[in-house]
This record gives sequence, structure tokens and C-alpha cells, in this order.
Amino acid sequence: MTIPTRAYAAHSPDSRFAPFSFERRDPKPNDVAIAISWCGVCHSDLHTARGEWAGTRYPCVPGHEIVGTVTAVGDAVTKFAVGDLVGVGCMVDSCLTCPSCQEGLEQYCEKGFTGTYNGPTQDTGDNTYGGYSDHIVVREEFVLKIRHSADQLAGVAPLLCAGITTWSPLRHWKVGPGHKVGIVGIGGLGHMGIKLAKALGAHVVAFTTSPSKREDAKALGADEVVVSRERAEMKAHTGSFDFILNTVAAPHDLDAFLALLKREGTMTLVGVPAEPHPSPSVGLLIFRRRSLSGSLIGGIAETQEMLDFCAERGIVSDIETIKMQDIDAAYERMLKSDVKYRFVIDMATLND
Amino acid sequence: MTIPTRAYAAHSPDSRFAPFSFERRDPKPNDVAIAISWCGVCHSDLHTARGEWAGTRYPCVPGHEIVGTVTAVGDAVTKFAVGDLVGVGCMVDSCLTCPSCQEGLEQYCEKGFTGTYNGPTQDTGDNTYGGYSDHIVVREEFVLKIRHSADQLAGVAPLLCAGITTWSPLRHWKVGPGHKVGIVGIGGLGHMGIKLAKALGAHVVAFTTSPSKREDAKALGADEVVVSRERAEMKAHTGSFDFILNTVAAPHDLDAFLALLKREGTMTLVGVPAEPHPSPSVGLLIFRRRSLSGSLIGGIAETQEMLDFCAERGIVSDIETIKMQDIDAAYERMLKSDVKYRFVIDMATLND
Repeated sequence: MTIPTRAYAAHSPDSRFAPFSFERRDPKPNDVAIAISWCGVCHSDLHTARGEWAGTRYPCVPGHEIVGTVTAVGDAVTKFAVGDLVGVGCMVDSCLTCPSCQEGLEQYCEKGFTGTYNGPTQDTGDNTYGGYSDHIVVREEFVLKIRHSADQLAGVAPLLCAGITTWSPLRHWKVGPGHKVGIVGIGGLGHMGIKLAKALGAHVVAFTTSPSKREDAKALGADEVVVSRERAEMKAHTGSFDFILNTVAAPHDLDAFLALLKREGTMTLVGVPAEPHPSPSVGLLIFRRRSLSGSLIGGIAETQEMLDFCAERGIVSDIETIKMQDIDAAYERMLKSDVKYRFVIDMATLND
Repeated sequence: MTIPTRAYAAHSPDSRFAPFSFERRDPKPNDVAIAISWCGVCHSDLHTARGEWAGTRYPCVPGHEIVGTVTAVGDAVTKFAVGDLVGVGCMVDSCLTCPSCQEGLEQYCEKGFTGTYNGPTQDTGDNTYGGYSDHIVVREEFVLKIRHSADQLAGVAPLLCAGITTWSPLRHWKVGPGHKVGIVGIGGLGHMGIKLAKALGAHVVAFTTSPSKREDAKALGADEVVVSRERAEMKAHTGSFDFILNTVAAPHDLDAFLALLKREGTMTLVGVPAEPHPSPSVGLLIFRRRSLSGSLIGGIAETQEMLDFCAERGIVSDIETIKMQDIDAAYERMLKSDVKYRFVIDMATLND
């Protein structure tokens, strides 16, 4: 029996969001049906809804920072039961057989993963609809257990994308005690990067273009804050970083940060700029054997690891909750970076 | 007692090379005095002699691929004796106390190493004169033992720069059996990259813009050769390389090669372009967690390791020997890539 679902959808690049009804699939034996309580608002939602990236399929129901409660499970489901608190992130399916999937790195699935929204699905190629909706049906392998307390759930939602996108590179490049780590940009991703790098034991330096964010960054856990437009401040850190996580997608001068890496240090980018960054200096790479890398969200196993790590330490995202009806206004504020640090939709408001 | 030395020097960016006489320093207790028999001709020699990089000090005596015989040793020298066959590469001194030096990575000395030519020296700041000369005095720590046979010595000279510059990244990124490795550019560096990667057990694919170099690359040991201007040939290798060593300094499209790397693959650049490369695609880095890196020559310990590895396997550079008087003509041919693959000056011709 399919599941009648209410959602908010964009119907064209220029239209505002509007109520939209559709049916979620009848849960298959390995599916988990979830009533969504919270959904974070990621900048990718905006890019996709507004057709700023190629290939948006309309109607578009964004949302891939989903937290909810299990309402039904298929016969073959072993890890979840009705009533469990669960999460769904950026992916709802992948081939599960290629080497990347076998290693638990479904985000690098060699056949391409199925996004939580803007599909296509692995079987029929249909469009997928995301978390700006009251229900979702997801195969068990892509559902995460939430071990935070019930009052933390809204702040957990952004962990499913902003959290894991910063956690995965921090772990892959083995950030920990004794490391000096930079986090560039203090937004949805960056504020999680600061919290997670600090919790992993690193000495954390936050970089921002806004002097006004100094105190905020310290409150998030940064040991030091550098205003990246201040040359003298930047220069004082030359050649001193083990790792820099750069969350800024807007085109900017990468060299200013590459120069701050130690020998063999790595700067990892997690945002794709609409226009290329200025070409990085090859000399800065060569003269200290530095690396410039990229990283994409994270695999399911490491997402669970991150959620458990955060639950144990009480780490959540700093958020502002909104009503579903306020999504267009939230996008406008997001474009002005007027959010600390993530909007999360209260899905109970969907039918207001 | 200083050592009267004959050399060839450039006296200005525009002048041709001319004979030049000067005195090498009286060997200090830890110095080795060497009679130079062969000196390779590196593209850096040309850039420096012609003032194409900032900071050339004239007179300029280039040459950092030096092979010769020990003629005298200071009292404190323990590793070398008169008559030993020895080499000197790109460095003749460094602080030896910073973390990089302590790890045997003098090329990344935090105070800066002293180049074999175009100094300045660590003590007085004087200019250093390189291997286009009949004698050189070098502190023991920067002298390499040559274990090749006497008839191989001319081909050993380029190992001291072209060899180690390709060896160091191949070793640092742990190239070996089971790896698919690309070498971009088949010149002085690239031809050594092919030989060394092959000897290390990798499956080696050479990339060239010249279809005419296909057979040459195979003769050097490449398992496959790809003409990088042929899109279909390139595309067939998408996502398949563990490591790519890019020896091309001329500005070019890095994305064409980044796309060929596997998940977590690295492309390492060893040449600094005069103008920036087009900015590399961040998406190509992110969607497979790839890295773009740089590497600078190599440390003394790894240079000795490479020389011993090559001596054991009879590996030398493919060279064309020239007379000292023909250096200007050799530069002109080098600019047209008209050399297979390195010119080496026969220092016995210096006084012809």
C-alpha cells in the first residue's frame, strides 16, 4: 500500500515553493517507512530547486537532512523497528556491489548513488523526492540510527549532510590530538567542522572574512580565529597547519591558505564553486610537498560513526527552526548568510 | 689552499657562455674536493642562466647533475676517500638541524637549502658555482656515492636531478607492484619517471602530445602509451590510475589527467609553470576524493637510495654527450625538445 505524502515542491526554477501531494512507494521487504519530524535546509537544496545546477527534475522536493520516526518496516528489515528515531542523509541508494560500496564509501559508488532528492532511482529512473515532506520510504542500508535525546532532534538533522561532509575528511586525513587544523568559512558546514575537529582533539583555527564572527567562532569551539583578509594575521600562521578543511564554495584565493600548510599538509575542498577558483600556485604545492584535495559527503558507516560520536558528546548543529511555509524566505536569508548556522524545517507545520 | 677552477659562465641574461676562472674554497675538515668528469644539462640551468626566474646572480655557472672523482678530503670526512666516484645534485648545504633536515628531507629545509649554483651559501651568502666547471668542493653530507661502473658515468649524471625528482614522489606515494602509474611528458624528467616506475614494479602508462614518441616511450619501458591529444585514448583510462607523475611545466589542462585518477588517486606536479595552469576542476577532486600535489627534487638519503637502486639494475639516463663549448647550441636544441633525453657535458672538453 503506497503512502500518501504531503510535501512542498518547487515546480520550476522561478516559482515559489507550493504544497504538493504524491504517494511514497509501498515499502518493499528491505524498506523502512519514516514519518519526518525535522528536515535541515542545505544550500544544495536551493541550487537544485532554482535550477542553478544542470539537471533539476521538476517537481523538485529538496531536503536531505532528515530526522524522523519509523512507522513501518519491511519483512526483511533487521536493524530497525517501529518507533525508532532515525535519520536519512544525502543518499537513499547505490549499487552496493562496486569496490567503493563494498568499502562503505557509497558516496563514491562507481555507478553513482541515488540522491535523496532529484534521483533518478536505481531501478526505474524515477525522480526521488526529499525531506520537505511528511513521509519517506528508504531501504534499510541507507537509514541511520539516532541516539541523541528527543529534545535534540532538530539540531541532529544537519548532521546528516553538514556534519558528515566535514566529518568524513577530518577522519580520512586522520585529524586528532596534536594536529593544527584550519576550518575556512563559518557557515552550515564550517560551524560543524569547528565542533567536530575540536571534539576530535585538534587545535582548531577558524578562518572568516568577517571580523564580526570572531566571538561566534570561539563560542563554537575554535581555539583561534583568523580574519582571512588581514594579511598580518594570515602570515603569522605560515607553514603551520597539518590540515585545512575549506568549506567555502565561492571562488577565492586558495594560495592564501595553501601557504599556511606545513610540509605534506593537505587542504581539502568540500564545495564546488560556480566559477573556478583562481588557479592555485604550483610552487606552493611543490616547495613543501603540499596537497589540494576534495571530499564528498561521507559513507553510511562513517555517518553512523559520526552520529554516535555526536550523541555521546551531546554535539548538535546550531540551528534556527522554521515553518515549512517560510522556506522561500529562508532561502533569501541563506543567500545573505543570515543564519546561525542552519535552518531546520519543523515538519509538524506542513499542514498549517 | 684554494683550488683553481675553470668553468663556463653566463655573465648576463643575454650573453653566450664564456670561459670563467675562479677559486674553489680550501676544503674544510668536512669537505670533499671533486674533479668533475660529467655534468648534465637541466632546464633549470637555462632558466637561471638566462635570468628567466627572478634572482640570478652573475656570473652564473649552472650545473647540478655532477659526477666526478674525489681528489681530496678534509680531516673529518669519514665516508669518502680520494679516488671514489661521487655525485653532487641540486643541493650543497642546508641547516641540517630543522625537522625536515633531521628527517633527511633537506630539500624542504625550513631555512632553505643552498643550491649547487646561484647560492647563496649558508655562511657568507656568497654565490655558489655549479658543475659547468672542472672542480667542486662540497661538504660531505651532500656528496653521493656512485656505484655504477665507470663506463656508465655520463648516464649517471642526470640521475642527480632528473632521477631523484621523479624517484622521490614515486617513493613518497609508494608506487609499486599492482599500481597503475601515469607519467606525463617524455623529456629529461619523464623518461626517468618511466624507467623508475617500471623498475619499481608498476604498470606504466606514458602520456605524450607527440604520436612520434610512442615507440620511444615503449623502448624506455612504458607498458602503454597514450597520446594526450586523442580524446578517445584518454577517455579509455578514466578513473583508472593510482598515481600520475606530471613532469610538464608548460601550462596545460590538468583536468584531462585528474579525470584519469581512481578514487583517492594523486597527481603530483614537479614542474613550476611560468604562467599558471588553467584552474583545476574542484568537482574532479571532490567526486573521487582525488589530490593534486607537488614534489621538489629529493633528500640526500633518498638520492643515495635511488643511485644504489639504479646501479644494481644498470639504470642510467638516456643521454647525448656534448662538449662544454657547445652549451649554447644545446640550450637552443633543448628549447625545441630536440634531445633524447638529456645533454651531458664531457668536462674533459673544458679546455679544448
